[in-house]
Amino acid sequence: MAADLESKLQLVHRHIRPFPDFPKKGILFRDICPILKDPAALTAVIDLFEEHVRKNHQQVDLIVGIDARGFLFGPLLAQRLGVGFVLVRKKGKLPGTTVSVAYDLEYGKAEAEIQEDAVAPGQKILLIDDLLATGGTLHAACELMKKQQAEILGCLVVIELKELNGIDQLKSHAVFSLVQY
Amino acid sequence: MAADLESKLQLVHRHIRPFPDFPKKGILFRDICPILKDPAALTAVIDLFEEHVRKNHQQVDLIVGIDARGFLFGPLLAQRLGVGFVLVRKKGKLPGTTVSVAYDLEYGKAEAEIQEDAVAPGQKILLIDDLLATGGTLHAACELMKKQQAEILGCLVVIELKELNGIDQLKSHAVFSLVQY
Repeated sequence: MAADLESKLQLVHRHIRPFPDFPKKGILFRDICPILKDPAALTAVIDLFEEHVRKNHQQVDLIVGIDARGFLFGPLLAQRLGVGFVLVRKKGKLPGTTVSVAYDLEYGKAEAEIQEDAVAPGQKILLIDDLLATGGTLHAACELMKKQQAEILGCLVVIELKELNGIDQLKSHAVFSLVQY
Repeated sequence: MAADLESKLQLVHRHIRPFPDFPKKGILFRDICPILKDPAALTAVIDLFEEHVRKNHQQVDLIVGIDARGFLFGPLLAQRLGVGFVLVRKKGKLPGTTVSVAYDLEYGKAEAEIQEDAVAPGQKILLIDDLLATGGTLHAACELMKKQQAEILGCLVVIELKELNGIDQLKSHAVFSLVQY
């Protein structure tokens, strides 16, 4: 890896804080707030995502981001690539005709939703979120994209928690993460 | 106003969709999803915010964005200005020592929270959200900033719903909105 990329990765790494026992006992929470607070670290995240996308995907039509922390990174990447951004939200937040998928969360149950006209059949999309844990949310978002007949190019996350094997749920889709624990 | 600014405002305006009776009967919901989906419209939003900030504020230390739709615009503006972004979240989402403020929502009750070390006393901050309705959320975020002794320069929103008089709640703070209904 080029020294430039390596130093950007280290910058990102240094801006993730561990918090034991949050949101409940036994969970080690990885906090990305310091990345957002440091403009150079946030630029590095988007640089690394952009580099990956340009190297691996000739065409991207839309970035699809997951409520709420996917919203922090998705519009930045979409603007870099000159493409649109689509919101996957928790149920009940989006107006108009929507499509939804139920899924299990790491700490409960939820439903993911998009607007029916958010993605057109055949559009090439990349999903983005802050974190891949058990993969439930990203899997649900992939199901939403399949319902709309979008072409899923892959998933982008800042952090992958490898011990939770979230990648198993997403095995038919490429997952690119910047930092792994 | 310069023709360039006027055409950007019109572009933003054209990408806001009205949905009657959402999330409940009698409410006319203004949907910003089309702005996010159109890269030029999203660039226009950030251009207009940046222009306003550079003209009116000599120094800005942090952009403070409100969960969840403030996250869509805040990091983009923060990156343009070369400053950090801080998250105001719904209660229970942020790890570490937090500070919270309860408030009334347009459709219920909620609590807004920040990490205690998110903002230092005397830091000059700008709040950002998609929408000013009754002003409850932005007012709570301002209270959080006051608790941390930050200097509030003002609030930025894409849309202001004038008939709800949200600005009354925020009267001690300057509110800049791109589109008014």
